[in-house]
Amino acid sequence: MESKIRIGIVGYGNLGKGAVAAIRQTTDLELVAIFTRREPESLNLDDSSIQVAHISDAADYKDKIDVMLLCGGSAHDLPEQTPHFASLFNTVDSFDTHAKIPEFYKAVNEVAVKHNTTAIISVGWDPGLFSINRVMADAILPNGENYTFWGKGLSQGHSDAVRRVEGVKNGVQYTIPADAAIEKVRSGQNPELTTAEKHRRVCYIVPDEGADQAALENEIKTMPNYFADYDTEVNFITEEELKRDHSKAPHGGFVIRGGNTGDGNKQIFEFSLKLDSNPEFTASVLVAYARAAHRLSQEKQYGAKTVYDVAPGYISPRSAEELRKDFL
Amino acid sequence: MESKIRIGIVGYGNLGKGAVAAIRQTTDLELVAIFTRREPESLNLDDSSIQVAHISDAADYKDKIDVMLLCGGSAHDLPEQTPHFASLFNTVDSFDTHAKIPEFYKAVNEVAVKHNTTAIISVGWDPGLFSINRVMADAILPNGENYTFWGKGLSQGHSDAVRRVEGVKNGVQYTIPADAAIEKVRSGQNPELTTAEKHRRVCYIVPDEGADQAALENEIKTMPNYFADYDTEVNFITEEELKRDHSKAPHGGFVIRGGNTGDGNKQIFEFSLKLDSNPEFTASVLVAYARAAHRLSQEKQYGAKTVYDVAPGYISPRSAEELRKDFL
Repeated sequence: MESKIRIGIVGYGNLGKGAVAAIRQTTDLELVAIFTRREPESLNLDDSSIQVAHISDAADYKDKIDVMLLCGGSAHDLPEQTPHFASLFNTVDSFDTHAKIPEFYKAVNEVAVKHNTTAIISVGWDPGLFSINRVMADAILPNGENYTFWGKGLSQGHSDAVRRVEGVKNGVQYTIPADAAIEKVRSGQNPELTTAEKHRRVCYIVPDEGADQAALENEIKTMPNYFADYDTEVNFITEEELKRDHSKAPHGGFVIRGGNTGDGNKQIFEFSLKLDSNPEFTASVLVAYARAAHRLSQEKQYGAKTVYDVAPGYISPRSAEELRKDFL
Repeated sequence: MESKIRIGIVGYGNLGKGAVAAIRQTTDLELVAIFTRREPESLNLDDSSIQVAHISDAADYKDKIDVMLLCGGSAHDLPEQTPHFASLFNTVDSFDTHAKIPEFYKAVNEVAVKHNTTAIISVGWDPGLFSINRVMADAILPNGENYTFWGKGLSQGHSDAVRRVEGVKNGVQYTIPADAAIEKVRSGQNPELTTAEKHRRVCYIVPDEGADQAALENEIKTMPNYFADYDTEVNFITEEELKRDHSKAPHGGFVIRGGNTGDGNKQIFEFSLKLDSNPEFTASVLVAYARAAHRLSQEKQYGAKTVYDVAPGYISPRSAEELRKDFL
């Protein structure tokens, strides 16, 4: 039997927890250790066989780990962590600050090339699977238009914004793709659509006792940047309802390209995800790409890579023969 | 300016015509010649700048063509043509006899390895894009189930079957995914479904004058293998209506995987195509993969390849920098 690919995880927030769960579902990957900035003893894992170490001790694991999954955030953690860990390990991260990807790529690539490691950056679903579909659709149907819709999804930034409103005790905001816009795109009309036309916003608010609900609703709906340009719906619920019905982190979305071939034949290309748990799915994508990081590294394909550089077969646990026979 | 990738096309049926149209939409590919078994003069191209040559003269073009698109059929043409042309050129074909792919791969691989060419086999949408999505979904969500639905699509085999019925003058058959089955799959229930439960069949029939329509309908609906197991609908129309409304070759379908992560969170992964013209879309996929065949060959990655071996960036006309900056 072939030996398993040895995985480490840096960071034990929602994404790191999702990675632990995703590795458990595989038969070809083995979780060696989780690295944290907290006191390792404080992590309270339900599985005592999982080793927990302080992040500053990671270098000691250089020969015990094939791929390190970097499960920190894009704002503060990954810009430091990916270059650091890519000097020691093959890595996979989910860096998702779109505007900063070119400079992030450059910084990581320099380190990875120098240290003969493979670092796959910006993995997940957007950036990630959505990116793949945008590029493939564009390559296959050059005469066309790409559309990306997000949701139904819990938006952290917009939820924070409603919770900052005076008189709001608690609340969440969902971004929801506008059905009319999706139908227009699916029909191949290639319409011009603003982000506001593509999405609507639905809030579930727990008001402070005695708050003026009509005034709250108006204040939210007219909030500049966040809601004013959107079709916004405000619902008032109790704290119990919020806890019961809105404590998951669902997300998803659509990438649709409408293209024309020949004498104007319409061709619609669509990819979509409907996710009960955004962090668990993102972690599952990272875990699958760990196989690719390991394999590319064995082929001496060092440096920073993106999902565009990874052949689909490389993320599968199955052999090329099995894929050709049973999946092609 | 970089020089264009020089393309040849073998076979000028619907797929070959689609390839001509697809190449026209690109700026990085150049059509050098079409090769046919017919008299080259008989082809009647609307563009006199396109060279047409007899298939037996293809070897003369060895240094003038970077990638040969093989647009013949899977039953009789490709099993002969791909091994032959792979001894001379990099090739892309759409071999789609699923059960015979392993032996086809082996035969093509031997030739391509021996002659230092790159032959990407079984390209299109199924096999092709659907295959990629089946494998990626399976790799990312190991605890789940894949479903493939075909249609709405014109089925050649079933159209032939209804036309063979005595009393039928002309007709077509569409395979249509069953909405109820799709909804069940999209809800993440991972139901067990037979092909008959996943699809229904709709026929448009031009009856012979004076034919007994009720008897025809009954004969079609009870035809073993083709219709008896399916929810089948039979509509009677005129020859004019057939010509007006049913002369295109639409197709498409869905690949859906319902998977579970963590403590039973449902994750739905879906890819779909809605195509006005099946051959034009398939040809567009072949044309995009010509870029990959050329690039893999330049990297000396010789032998038979499938879509599983091709990184998404390799089919794009855009640079890696542009993809990272604008599409990731």
